[in-house]
Amino acid sequence: MENIYAERISRLREMMDSKGWDAVLLNASDPHCSEYPAARWKQAEWLSGFTGEAASLVITRSHAGLWTDTRYFIQAQSQLLGTGIALHKLRVPEQVPIPQWLAMEARRISASGSVVRIALDSLCWSVAQVQEIQAAFGNREVADGMACEIVAVPDLMDSLWQDRPQVPCTPVITLDPEVSGCATRAEKINTLRKSMLKNGCDNILLTALDEIAWVLNIRASDIDYNPYCISYLLISQESVQWFSRKALSFDPDTLDSYDELAADEVQVEDYDALIPALESISPSESIFVDFSSLNWQVYEILCDIYASSESSLLLSGKSPVALMKAVKNPREIALLKETFIEDGLAEERFLKWLEESVTAASRGERPPVDEWEASLKLSSLRKEIDGFRGESFENISAYGPSAALPHYVTSSEGSRKLEARGLYLVDSGGQYLTGTTDITRTVPLGPCTPLEKEDYTLVLKGMIELSMAVFPMGTAGCQIDVLAREPLWKARRNFGHGTGHGVGFYLGVHEGPQDIRQNFNSQALLPGMVTSNEPGIYREGQHGIRHENIILTVPDGTNEFGEWLCFETLTCCHIDTSAVLVELLSPEQRQWLNDYNARVYARLSPLMDEEERLWLAEKTRAI
Amino acid sequence: MENIYAERISRLREMMDSKGWDAVLLNASDPHCSEYPAARWKQAEWLSGFTGEAASLVITRSHAGLWTDTRYFIQAQSQLLGTGIALHKLRVPEQVPIPQWLAMEARRISASGSVVRIALDSLCWSVAQVQEIQAAFGNREVADGMACEIVAVPDLMDSLWQDRPQVPCTPVITLDPEVSGCATRAEKINTLRKSMLKNGCDNILLTALDEIAWVLNIRASDIDYNPYCISYLLISQESVQWFSRKALSFDPDTLDSYDELAADEVQVEDYDALIPALESISPSESIFVDFSSLNWQVYEILCDIYASSESSLLLSGKSPVALMKAVKNPREIALLKETFIEDGLAEERFLKWLEESVTAASRGERPPVDEWEASLKLSSLRKEIDGFRGESFENISAYGPSAALPHYVTSSEGSRKLEARGLYLVDSGGQYLTGTTDITRTVPLGPCTPLEKEDYTLVLKGMIELSMAVFPMGTAGCQIDVLAREPLWKARRNFGHGTGHGVGFYLGVHEGPQDIRQNFNSQALLPGMVTSNEPGIYREGQHGIRHENIILTVPDGTNEFGEWLCFETLTCCHIDTSAVLVELLSPEQRQWLNDYNARVYARLSPLMDEEERLWLAEKTRAI
Repeated sequence: MENIYAERISRLREMMDSKGWDAVLLNASDPHCSEYPAARWKQAEWLSGFTGEAASLVITRSHAGLWTDTRYFIQAQSQLLGTGIALHKLRVPEQVPIPQWLAMEARRISASGSVVRIALDSLCWSVAQVQEIQAAFGNREVADGMACEIVAVPDLMDSLWQDRPQVPCTPVITLDPEVSGCATRAEKINTLRKSMLKNGCDNILLTALDEIAWVLNIRASDIDYNPYCISYLLISQESVQWFSRKALSFDPDTLDSYDELAADEVQVEDYDALIPALESISPSESIFVDFSSLNWQVYEILCDIYASSESSLLLSGKSPVALMKAVKNPREIALLKETFIEDGLAEERFLKWLEESVTAASRGERPPVDEWEASLKLSSLRKEIDGFRGESFENISAYGPSAALPHYVTSSEGSRKLEARGLYLVDSGGQYLTGTTDITRTVPLGPCTPLEKEDYTLVLKGMIELSMAVFPMGTAGCQIDVLAREPLWKARRNFGHGTGHGVGFYLGVHEGPQDIRQNFNSQALLPGMVTSNEPGIYREGQHGIRHENIILTVPDGTNEFGEWLCFETLTCCHIDTSAVLVELLSPEQRQWLNDYNARVYARLSPLMDEEERLWLAEKTRAI
Repeated sequence: MENIYAERISRLREMMDSKGWDAVLLNASDPHCSEYPAARWKQAEWLSGFTGEAASLVITRSHAGLWTDTRYFIQAQSQLLGTGIALHKLRVPEQVPIPQWLAMEARRISASGSVVRIALDSLCWSVAQVQEIQAAFGNREVADGMACEIVAVPDLMDSLWQDRPQVPCTPVITLDPEVSGCATRAEKINTLRKSMLKNGCDNILLTALDEIAWVLNIRASDIDYNPYCISYLLISQESVQWFSRKALSFDPDTLDSYDELAADEVQVEDYDALIPALESISPSESIFVDFSSLNWQVYEILCDIYASSESSLLLSGKSPVALMKAVKNPREIALLKETFIEDGLAEERFLKWLEESVTAASRGERPPVDEWEASLKLSSLRKEIDGFRGESFENISAYGPSAALPHYVTSSEGSRKLEARGLYLVDSGGQYLTGTTDITRTVPLGPCTPLEKEDYTLVLKGMIELSMAVFPMGTAGCQIDVLAREPLWKARRNFGHGTGHGVGFYLGVHEGPQDIRQNFNSQALLPGMVTSNEPGIYREGQHGIRHENIILTVPDGTNEFGEWLCFETLTCCHIDTSAVLVELLSPEQRQWLNDYNARVYARLSPLMDEEERLWLAEKTRAI
């Protein structure tokens, strides 16, 4: 029997033939260029069977390729078996990203011999992505003189994907600034309008879902783990128009949401009313868009609208909301600290349960725990927390070789059984009205090999070095990323993912504009920014280790050399010391570890019962 | 009596009035956009009295400003006194570079109220620099709707600067590949032609003087310390044309140079024959130029030539020669190692003389040594080395507060007298047929204050950490720069210059394309690249400390995590341990320091007499 995905690809190729397309491009994004899409837009997964979050596909007459990064190589190799799809590796030195690949292969791909007709779902490709393809063809030498033609097809897969899910439409809640610490909607709109005035921009079209949720202080559940509402937001000095399928479907528990929005003069319009609204903007007014989250479909319409304007009134750049959102206000920071304590308490209770269960199973007192059961247990503990709204991503509960996949997906059936030896990795987080959490702990379940201990300690050294960093105002994440890597590099080990991502406030667990990684990103780390710190080591077939804390950028004084910043760790859960090779730690690293564990004990023990307290006291004993 | 520079500026303003210019821009560069110009092009110095190497001036009707970076703030403040010129600081967080300043001040500067007429010496401003000005005015909001008009005036200062020096024309020598280890001229031209073919470029115009010298294996002395010959080089698949004032003035000792060039089919043309040669290129052929070293004057001519070409045949980018030149070949590396031993021996003899002379003076046995005498002594020792061709830059011989100026210029009269206490900094280097050196040592001349010792040790920690770095292939300098800074940052101290620059092979002591600094530069550090490692601390009125070694990027094995690189230190001169606070060093740093000093002793002692050997043995004793 033919592989189901191979069969889907062959049906797609029939469509390509009938339309005269040389290539079809698919990705794992939605009309808002979200990092994680709702089910409707998991087109790459539908066509390839690959369930990783970062995936783009190129199908030509003779080739089917999937592009993904280091985090997913092992998973992709396994899931693509039998599909006929080749894996193209990203974030490796020899990478050939899709735009360059298309240009290099142009002559082979093209039927006409002069132009490559590239069809893509124009709703799901950002302007920036399409422009990268066009730019690659701009290099005459690489493209061998071939041109490219972008064929924009909204919902391209509709005719093949019969049971394709609908656009999601979940209940919306509004945030109470008293509860969530956020600035009011009116204040945010006001700040944004001032920024628009200053930059000579008459209208701004927000397309990124987290930015819209942030400005409006609304949350929904249109996308798993991401409390967003599929919508657009158009703001001028006179009006705020929110284009959403939610016009008439507010959460029954918060029926006053509509009134609340109306009180702030937010007009709620239907999702499809965006285009007429754009067309009704005066042709002399400018509009600002962000090409990284604007889809190609809306862009083409804007180009038509502004085609006749004398100087370009279609302004583009980085959305100002990204930075506003990333810098948490003092009240948000205070709430976050409490939230991380509650979240840490749940994690501690999980780790205690885990230890006891694995021990009991090793004595035959209970059946073995598997990764799935552990994941369920952790979820159940987090659910007990006040203000819990769901997980911030799917738990990664991974034992032994499972953890060698940085983004391992724990399956409900046949997941690996935990034994009283080696390392178990758990990466998880919660969405709360008072913030978003994200934590990874790797814990020994019993005796560990020398290599496991060495890797465990080296990764920890990296996490600690970054935690202890002091840096002048203006420093960007990529300028200090190496602090987390050098202890690994010195041992000729490395990890293929970023060291840190921004974390939203009851928003995406991944957000910009700052990050801490090798790639150049000029955004400075500013006081109030919340970022992860998560180096790792992954050895296929053996083990995976990641230590992840969330760190807050805070001021650290000013002197004749300038203004200084450092990090305060928000995550509040002990780091297991039993697998640490103490002799590999510097005195400062050892001191940091002991201080951190002592602080965790001081904060959590008052919230614990006596048995828990004794357990945590033992776990946090200085080494 | 009016300040001479104030008077020159007022004469310039008269010219501006008569011409209708709103602003005149001057810099410290030449028609090849060199970092250091010959005397003829020290226009900024002539107008302002500021002798620092990095200087640009903007003169408007009501404002005169000089832009320079952190290295020169103290010097500029002192030299600009009485000139009426304001200091504009670069490389500080609040910096406003010239393009942005012009745009922001546009409305105030402009006489017409709609356009700012900016006159500049079009021979001395690079295309990249002028385009930055134009881009700043492209931001409508910042420029308040004002436009800019670039008035290109070659040799703009000629009418004011009566005794302006001529274009230099010093003797040229050709390098013997047997002696200097370089590839032959024919091989280099062949490599370049292959690269041109691959990139679809018919002609390449080389404008950077070090690139021309490298390709042709020629050296001259047109610019102090920089063994360049003012010229252009135009290469196609058929011809190599060298446009130079040297056509008839080869060094009498190397009269066969012309024949040698002719043998490699290099046509020697007059410097001014460049334009006719460009005009005679077939209009269907492309030409590649590098905007960072192409001057605006030649660019405008090229634009005229290519104005009618259908698609743009005027290609621009980073010159491929920069990278070819930066990666030294195995024979060059072997020669460099020998050269650094010879150079280190001279430096050791200088340090021994210095110690003895300062001690003798403190006992009244000789007059005190001053900075100038020390500088002369060092030069005399370097001159004794075989193959010495001159210094690679002006010695910085700086005692106590003098060293707080990172680019202190030691003057022949009234320089500071050295006492038997505190820190003395000496930064120097030589040009040899077998390579270029650059070394900074900071040495205690007697008792040091606790702060001097702490600063000394922290800077040393930074230098050692970078020396010990291990990193994967593909890593750029900006990704590891922080290794040299974090020991200082942890103590809330910093330095305002880059950590490392590329070093040429009997070429510029500063070269690209790689560097090690905070600024984003995507060029990876590749095996064979030679770079400096020179962190520092500067305290105005107190002291300055810099430790500088030259490091070679070398392979460090390959494993499942990738291909690894590390540094090998080329500089061979002990680091004084008497000012080191040993308790501030990590065990690894201490080990590195002891190993380094032991290696210096092992290499140099066989070349020393008994007295020197005993002295060096003491200096390199493990701590």
